[in-house]
Amino acid sequence: MFDVTVKLPHDTVTVKAAAGENLLQVLRTAGVQLDAPCNGNGTCGKCRVKLEKGRVKRLRPGRQDTAGGGELLLACSCSVTEPLVVTVPGETLLACGSICLERDSSIFAGRYDSVKKAFEALHGRENHLQTAVLQLDEPTLDDNLSDVDRLTRSFRLAAGCDRVIINVEQARKLPHLLRENGFKVAVVYSRLPDGTSRLLDVKAPREHPGYGIAVDVGTTSVAACLVDLENGRVLGEAACTNAQSRYGADVINRIIFATKGDGLHLLQTAVVRESINPLIRELCLHSGLRGDDIVLFSVAANTVMTHLLLGVWPDFLRKEPYIPALTATENIAVTAADLGLCINKNALILLAPSVASYVGGDITAGVTAAFLRETEKNSMLIDLGTNGEIVLGNSEFAMTCACSAGPAFEGGEISCGMRAVAGAIESVAIDGTYTARFKVIGGQKPAGICGSGLIDLIAELKRTGLIDARGRFRKEINTANVVYDAYGVGRYIVAAKERYDIPADIYLTEIDIDNFIRAKAAVYSAACVLLSSLGLDFDDLAEIKVAGGIGNHINLDNAVRIGLFPALNPDKFTFIGNSSLTGSYLSLVNKKATAFMQQAAQQMTYLELSVYPGYMDEFVSASFIPHTDSRRFPSAASDRS
Amino acid sequence: MFDVTVKLPHDTVTVKAAAGENLLQVLRTAGVQLDAPCNGNGTCGKCRVKLEKGRVKRLRPGRQDTAGGGELLLACSCSVTEPLVVTVPGETLLACGSICLERDSSIFAGRYDSVKKAFEALHGRENHLQTAVLQLDEPTLDDNLSDVDRLTRSFRLAAGCDRVIINVEQARKLPHLLRENGFKVAVVYSRLPDGTSRLLDVKAPREHPGYGIAVDVGTTSVAACLVDLENGRVLGEAACTNAQSRYGADVINRIIFATKGDGLHLLQTAVVRESINPLIRELCLHSGLRGDDIVLFSVAANTVMTHLLLGVWPDFLRKEPYIPALTATENIAVTAADLGLCINKNALILLAPSVASYVGGDITAGVTAAFLRETEKNSMLIDLGTNGEIVLGNSEFAMTCACSAGPAFEGGEISCGMRAVAGAIESVAIDGTYTARFKVIGGQKPAGICGSGLIDLIAELKRTGLIDARGRFRKEINTANVVYDAYGVGRYIVAAKERYDIPADIYLTEIDIDNFIRAKAAVYSAACVLLSSLGLDFDDLAEIKVAGGIGNHINLDNAVRIGLFPALNPDKFTFIGNSSLTGSYLSLVNKKATAFMQQAAQQMTYLELSVYPGYMDEFVSASFIPHTDSRRFPSAASDRS
Repeated sequence: MFDVTVKLPHDTVTVKAAAGENLLQVLRTAGVQLDAPCNGNGTCGKCRVKLEKGRVKRLRPGRQDTAGGGELLLACSCSVTEPLVVTVPGETLLACGSICLERDSSIFAGRYDSVKKAFEALHGRENHLQTAVLQLDEPTLDDNLSDVDRLTRSFRLAAGCDRVIINVEQARKLPHLLRENGFKVAVVYSRLPDGTSRLLDVKAPREHPGYGIAVDVGTTSVAACLVDLENGRVLGEAACTNAQSRYGADVINRIIFATKGDGLHLLQTAVVRESINPLIRELCLHSGLRGDDIVLFSVAANTVMTHLLLGVWPDFLRKEPYIPALTATENIAVTAADLGLCINKNALILLAPSVASYVGGDITAGVTAAFLRETEKNSMLIDLGTNGEIVLGNSEFAMTCACSAGPAFEGGEISCGMRAVAGAIESVAIDGTYTARFKVIGGQKPAGICGSGLIDLIAELKRTGLIDARGRFRKEINTANVVYDAYGVGRYIVAAKERYDIPADIYLTEIDIDNFIRAKAAVYSAACVLLSSLGLDFDDLAEIKVAGGIGNHINLDNAVRIGLFPALNPDKFTFIGNSSLTGSYLSLVNKKATAFMQQAAQQMTYLELSVYPGYMDEFVSASFIPHTDSRRFPSAASDRS
Repeated sequence: MFDVTVKLPHDTVTVKAAAGENLLQVLRTAGVQLDAPCNGNGTCGKCRVKLEKGRVKRLRPGRQDTAGGGELLLACSCSVTEPLVVTVPGETLLACGSICLERDSSIFAGRYDSVKKAFEALHGRENHLQTAVLQLDEPTLDDNLSDVDRLTRSFRLAAGCDRVIINVEQARKLPHLLRENGFKVAVVYSRLPDGTSRLLDVKAPREHPGYGIAVDVGTTSVAACLVDLENGRVLGEAACTNAQSRYGADVINRIIFATKGDGLHLLQTAVVRESINPLIRELCLHSGLRGDDIVLFSVAANTVMTHLLLGVWPDFLRKEPYIPALTATENIAVTAADLGLCINKNALILLAPSVASYVGGDITAGVTAAFLRETEKNSMLIDLGTNGEIVLGNSEFAMTCACSAGPAFEGGEISCGMRAVAGAIESVAIDGTYTARFKVIGGQKPAGICGSGLIDLIAELKRTGLIDARGRFRKEINTANVVYDAYGVGRYIVAAKERYDIPADIYLTEIDIDNFIRAKAAVYSAACVLLSSLGLDFDDLAEIKVAGGIGNHINLDNAVRIGLFPALNPDKFTFIGNSSLTGSYLSLVNKKATAFMQQAAQQMTYLELSVYPGYMDEFVSASFIPHTDSRRFPSAASDRS
């Protein structure tokens, strides 16, 4: 065993390594998380480290078989043969991508508030946490009840409950807290179903009940909002890439990784330490709060993400008969420490319940946020995530299915794709000279293309005849904006680096288009099959609610032209943003929403597409722009063909 | 800051130290716990370490002001001035004393069993933990309930309960466990007061409910027994010194230490890591079990020890109006992780309830084990611990008080004192030549004197006229067995090293006798005051039960002659051993005993001796052998005076 000393921007760690061990693996073992989206295949070129001392053995052919002091090299491409000192540059560490914090509350506050009020109007309201300010009698020789008993005596009277449970940490705080505040304290508590009260926090006497964090853990992205529990106001919103992405882009690859060696543990800690906790810290920092102020935590995620977050073996989810380890989550006792969350140790944790292997808490949260069950008319919720999920229902029934769309809607597996954050091209038009004109989120220089931009771009490439129905560039059209690589794969230059003074061209390749077509085909065909399984058609729908992190400004016309959505009256479509996060937020601020989700999960019927006859045919037909049955999409008829 | 490298027998740690820092403190900060009963005063000479490299500054006058490489020195007596390498020898580390494991179950099994049966006959029986073996239906595409829901569905039917809580760790185990056992598993659960069931363990299908550990945390000693929860059988019994002892011999000194710097944390971790956990490991090892097999843990301790074990600030216990942070413990939620116990993470933890600042769970456990409340006649329980506790009561009432006896009964603060374990002199007679004849526990060479031996020894010294009523040696008696040191303090040689081939003489000094007289005076006078507060006398007692780790063979006659116990009919005395541990055991094996203790605690009246008029007079009168009022002890009249 050799010592490998790893110099980090603010820290130095030393770890033991065996001769022949892969350096990337050694660094991961040391808890140093490198950005390696290809997971060590040597293709992404991102896991660059600097060799300060010692020599390594190269695993892939290079100029030399060994590399020595001072060289920059890819950690995944070499193995340890002697003691080393390596420096990991800051940019190599940025594993979860930068956090995008939305500071301007006018952008999000109204949205959350209106959904919260709408839910309250329909279902009423109940808080998870109550706060009681108690003035206890000061003890005397005659009234010498212990601090805990004194508190519970007073609490029982104030809250009208018989049984109280107090955690040992609260008991630890109590002696000083009481005496420093003249025996007046505030108690934050939650009422258990059986009427027992559990004290979550005991603190100096102020009425404020504390803060909550609602999270949506998506396969590709993690989003969170910080909530003032006194009034339900959202104080900040932030998102980042799910750090698990480097271990696999979709749920199937994650499951496979989880079942190998230490994989489950790596995935569990990756999403918590590198995605959720950084988001919590960023949100808290922005609002001047500490992790300890967070006493309520709500999370919505698909079934696989929920399993991985809880550290529960997910492999049986993908093996017939596709059995989750858990779905209904109300009877799971889970603490912040169980998950490694950097919040108050006693925080109440709410997990949105799942329905089946591939329909998770994100969709039960989404249904709640979309108000799908509150109308008699048939409505559909389409969640454009990596795991595309669709719900068809009304107040009488709800049926759901899921399809593997891949990360294309969120910019994943697209050469210049990115999430819908500042710098993303969110809408595109192509002019008569085959040149793209676009709008960038935040008005800055373009950095990539987000989901809504991709829809526009592909619709425009098709409209102008640059690509055909299969998504291939037509070589007969002569334009400098389409170029071909050595293998003959075409790419369209959306933003040339010279023109926009950016580090590299922003472009779209035929492979990117393929990935996007597969995503949109998966969603459209799943929606068709879900409807036809009940003998219905798109025309029977009163409303389609579209959710997902695809961007706020989807051009509906273009989305129909490429065959993502059916050609219905535009009034029938509503874009509701990240419905999973909104549902997670609702659950956080209203106990009735938590209960509603549990009920919704129990009442939902799940359609397993993979065993449904006709789904593959529908998928194949939808794998064109817009579809083999062009009559379904009359608006696309004017496209150049 | 300098690096101090600490070489331990099986490990090496490095810690940073500032110039001028005391080396003992540096080592403690590094988590190295040294045997330092004088807590760094430089008087006990036990914190010896070897200086391998570097020089230190001596804090106390020596031949030189600094010490250099290779020297053996007292860690408490020097400070750091440069980087050091020190070796800590194994014997310096033996902080909690050796563990005394009782392997011969015939010595203890019958005792526990008879108390268990007696309690059951009077109060009935209920287990804390139930076990159910469940055969679940194997899942299919049509019956695709999740693993957790499948388990709880089956469990609800089998156990007849509505609400089930399952910890996330159990959920983590479930997927493989079910599939490896044909969907047949055993569930260990406890029923909460509201009827909810909490699953503590899910395991391969065998009916065995697991194992429990009952502990008595005394101020000086910690004792534990390992229990098979299937039948309540005790598999092993062990005891060791409370490692907190090095931070102070009695509860007042512990409280003072707890309130300084990191003291509370040091005390909490000392008793858990160095006393309780080693006992658990030793007991488990002896029975071939793992810590994970321990699913139930019961602890009885005095109020201060309970506070320190829980890591709760104890300072207000000693300040008027003497308010504990907690007494009734049924509403405190505490986990193995909260305390750092090396048992199953989900183990149920039972804490014996306290009555007041200085009457703790040890006494409510003791009252339960002594069956004091089940008779109409007045009985008294005397617990001869460091904190001497006395209960007077019958089925109608119970009154209790506590006195600070110090550790003398357990051999503490006695030059050659030791606990009642193998090697201890447990009974003594002095012959006509003033030579001691004694019996040693285990029949081996004498190593020290335990409580019962001290009673005999002092009674015999008095009987033979070697000491007077004040415990001073009479210089007029000429014997080689009494010698005087340079300050004129006399000592009696019980076992000369040459005669018994032992490393050093075993002796008793006048200071030792003083300490013992104070202990016996505190107990006797407390008993008197407790009786007189109710207008009663010793003659009104039908029975006196004597508890404590003083030894199994107290010579009652001698105990009366020295004025420890009143001169009553010997039939009225019963010696019941460690009643706190027995009560802790009862609570472990019978939920009704846990409830009985809670009730007993609530019904007990506490008499605060320190404010009771007349107590000091009684104490002063009792501080003689046997007492200023010799008529109370007629048997002592024949002593030579």
